[in-house]
Amino acid sequence: MKIGKSTVPRTAICTSNEHTIVVRGEDLCQDLIGHLSFADYFILLLTGRRPDPACSAVLNATLVAIAEHGLVPSVQASRMTYAAAPDALQGAVAAGILGCGSVILGASETAGRLFVEVAQRVDAGAALDEVAVAVLHELKAQGRSIPGYGHPLHKSSDPRVDRLIAVATEAGADLRYVHIAQALERAIAQVVGKPLRMNVSAAIPAVLLGVGFPVGSLRGVPILARTAGLIAHLAEEAEQPSGFALSYQATRELQYDGQVPAGFSAHG
Amino acid sequence: MKIGKSTVPRTAICTSNEHTIVVRGEDLCQDLIGHLSFADYFILLLTGRRPDPACSAVLNATLVAIAEHGLVPSVQASRMTYAAAPDALQGAVAAGILGCGSVILGASETAGRLFVEVAQRVDAGAALDEVAVAVLHELKAQGRSIPGYGHPLHKSSDPRVDRLIAVATEAGADLRYVHIAQALERAIAQVVGKPLRMNVSAAIPAVLLGVGFPVGSLRGVPILARTAGLIAHLAEEAEQPSGFALSYQATRELQYDGQVPAGFSAHG
Amino acid sequence: MKIGKSTVPRTAICTSNEHTIVVRGEDLCQDLIGHLSFADYFILLLTGRRPDPACSAVLNATLVAIAEHGLVPSVQASRMTYAAAPDALQGAVAAGILGCGSVILGASETAGRLFVEVAQRVDAGAALDEVAVAVLHELKAQGRSIPGYGHPLHKSSDPRVDRLIAVATEAGADLRYVHIAQALERAIAQVVGKPLRMNVSAAIPAVLLGVGFPVGSLRGVPILARTAGLIAHLAEEAEQPSGFALSYQATRELQYDGQVPAGFSAHG
Amino acid sequence: MKIGKSTVPRTAICTSNEHTIVVRGEDLCQDLIGHLSFADYFILLLTGRRPDPACSAVLNATLVAIAEHGLVPSVQASRMTYAAAPDALQGAVAAGILGCGSVILGASETAGRLFVEVAQRVDAGAALDEVAVAVLHELKAQGRSIPGYGHPLHKSSDPRVDRLIAVATEAGADLRYVHIAQALERAIAQVVGKPLRMNVSAAIPAVLLGVGFPVGSLRGVPILARTAGLIAHLAEEAEQPSGFALSYQATRELQYDGQVPAGFSAHG
Repeated sequence: MKIGKSTVPRTAICTSNEHTIVVRGEDLCQDLIGHLSFADYFILLLTGRRPDPACSAVLNATLVAIAEHGLVPSVQASRMTYAAAPDALQGAVAAGILGCGSVILGASETAGRLFVEVAQRVDAGAALDEVAVAVLHELKAQGRSIPGYGHPLHKSSDPRVDRLIAVATEAGADLRYVHIAQALERAIAQVVGKPLRMNVSAAIPAVLLGVGFPVGSLRGVPILARTAGLIAHLAEEAEQPSGFALSYQATRELQYDGQVPAGFSAHG
Repeated sequence: MKIGKSTVPRTAICTSNEHTIVVRGEDLCQDLIGHLSFADYFILLLTGRRPDPACSAVLNATLVAIAEHGLVPSVQASRMTYAAAPDALQGAVAAGILGCGSVILGASETAGRLFVEVAQRVDAGAALDEVAVAVLHELKAQGRSIPGYGHPLHKSSDPRVDRLIAVATEAGADLRYVHIAQALERAIAQVVGKPLRMNVSAAIPAVLLGVGFPVGSLRGVPILARTAGLIAHLAEEAEQPSGFALSYQATRELQYDGQVPAGFSAHG
Repeated sequence: MKIGKSTVPRTAICTSNEHTIVVRGEDLCQDLIGHLSFADYFILLLTGRRPDPACSAVLNATLVAIAEHGLVPSVQASRMTYAAAPDALQGAVAAGILGCGSVILGASETAGRLFVEVAQRVDAGAALDEVAVAVLHELKAQGRSIPGYGHPLHKSSDPRVDRLIAVATEAGADLRYVHIAQALERAIAQVVGKPLRMNVSAAIPAVLLGVGFPVGSLRGVPILARTAGLIAHLAEEAEQPSGFALSYQATRELQYDGQVPAGFSAHG
Repeated sequence: MKIGKSTVPRTAICTSNEHTIVVRGEDLCQDLIGHLSFADYFILLLTGRRPDPACSAVLNATLVAIAEHGLVPSVQASRMTYAAAPDALQGAVAAGILGCGSVILGASETAGRLFVEVAQRVDAGAALDEVAVAVLHELKAQGRSIPGYGHPLHKSSDPRVDRLIAVATEAGADLRYVHIAQALERAIAQVVGKPLRMNVSAAIPAVLLGVGFPVGSLRGVPILARTAGLIAHLAEEAEQPSGFALSYQATRELQYDGQVPAGFSAHG
């Protein structure tokens, strides 16, 4: 069935013959394996260009920053899935990745798009702090939350934020989007009426946009990073299972608020 | 519901308080972000130890080697999924990862377990070439395929194999499992009666086991690597869609071999 | 980590003790198994109420209508995933379900929300045909497509549409949303300038909303239905593999439009 | 890339032209929609034949029996995934399905294969009770668990078992595999030394194999059934969120047994 206009698939990422694999115009075996780190190769795959040292430093820092934060919901989902289906490691990783959505890890991309919007208005002549206040009022009017600010655990400040900004500064990265993120942080106190500090999901686009990382692939950063964390958790799950214990604990205080037939008692 | 014996979940990977995130005993922000590459961090997450330079070099090489090989079935599945559900990048990545199974990318782990079995028999006093012949006969008797040998495109030789072995050699890695993999290659010509050359799924465990990578997590290497490739393909899909064109082409020569009602013609 | 306000999970769907499983207030074993069809049970699970005969007839008809339409992209993705990972049936089903997104099967829910919006404006006193024209102009102004109209294969008319409306009529269902869907079909010719006929993704909410199916779960109907179709395709794949053949065909006319190193030729 | 021998995909499930959709040789719109229940259509899709009344009754009973059992691990994984990624219902359903693996819901298929093995040995002339004892000794020798016996909650007896057998009996189904399942139950007390009662995962194949359901698709029954339950849980999650509360409870007694840097205290 023909869906859409094009019937001929195209790609510019990879081609090969019996002897040679070409990736982004380079010979995979001669030019890339052993010459490029995995994170740098990710940039080449994504953009067609090798990263400069600042991009490489900042990307590695963001991947390390977001790969792991303990037994967060998506890790729990992944470990429960593995406990139930231990033959399919890929299925448990997939279950964990499916939790990288709009509410939790997808905020990196939403925050990045907000920073680009602010940058465009500043380019058009507006003052940064005024734009920051304006976009927050617009989010509020639309009933949307502010992506990348506030954290349920790191309330006073998310320690990854300062560290990522320090890495970007040391690497000589363009700090424009860091300044935008900080302007929004200042404006939040004013518009929302309480301080919400920048979290890692704002810091990631703030540093990555300054080294040329494409805004449309920002959600890929936490997905790639968390895949590494999930594989580590599943290796631990295989050795020392916790998936079913997590699910047991999860329901210890569960309240059933539906009806029951006459004579039914929860304790049998 | 209590499933299994343990009701208390445990982990040794990560803990945190409001100000500090601890990963494998180190302070994420002070000690790891900006100090460790993403691939090295993957080893730390997985094993609790930082990799030595040989392990780092070999792991990066294997991740680069396996991340991308064009529009293979799992990439097609991922791009078709994205075309149908473009709002959920994580869903399209998950669909691609679900194809990292026993037949295609899972062969790394199956081959690695075979190499460990050979090593144990050699440690017990048998000669390598005799063990190689013996295990192949055993696989044959069980009707199982030989994991990691032969490739549908790279028939005469998979170019990634020599390159990975060269990287491991240059890095000073222990080459024991490379020699085992090569002994199996020699034995295949004898036992199977036709040459099947080592492919990348044999080369990956051959070099990684020599730098201490845990055999139980070998399947994680192609999963992590392919996640990077999938994110790149989905970025391309967002700019220049091919998912529906792939599905159109896929069925152009489809043969329907079921029944039809009287009067039905395929062309309406 | 505490995310959100609530820390106590609640549910009204199911509770149990050692001897009895309660679903929606009824005893699963005494009252439901053997007394209720699977589709009727789906309604009970979803809404807490057993369906009336019209709801049951219409729901079964929609599930049958949307379960299967040959080797559509999500079925291809599922069969390719199974070919690569045959040990994990659940993974291949999951890959297929991940393609039930906003573009393809999710249109049922988007169309349903549009019909509810039209109904509310009519309730507020506007004339149906005027509302239909107005909402189409609004979609156009927002650059959004019209969900549930037009089909790449069934151009002159989707045969499932008339049949679903006939089943709903025979069952004595409220046809209000059918009339709304038809008003939109008439308005499209006028606003868009070419006829786009109602497809199955519009017919499903048109008939289901009239029997009380909740608009927020409309996307669940194609997901549940397609799961049945996917399981059948994977049973066929296990017997007569086509997954790799589909992926081979998909790339036969693939165009690589990236660069290649000097001396590289596609044919080796 | 050509993987495997076949390059031409084939299917016998569905074909269509602009006006007609053919499923298993019948006209979907004229013959199936409105004439067949969803569960009966599932049998037609899977086997190419419409079910007889006994098969229909038994299949509906098993789907109802297994669709829902409260906040089991896969439902928790699904609800946590939805809480994190509420825009992608299909992703949360997929995460739940990924937990239908070998340990939990896949036991239906493993048990079914065991029953078929027993039946074949009885057909070859052995006595049922002796075969039952023999296969249990073989499982024990291989270190494998007995699929479909014992339940963490329903210790004295799983109430779904008797009910499914009653439905099969009333429907006039062939009870051969029920008798096999019961013979294994008797043999377990003898071989294992403690009684393990048949659970729903043994009862499902016991009744379904007797109405001609294909053993190779048994795992599809819990997958299809649970999809209905998952959609209901996700509808509840959208109205009354519990996903994050479940994950909060799950870690309340979490023990971190790794190292910490000097001066780190869990409570900040």
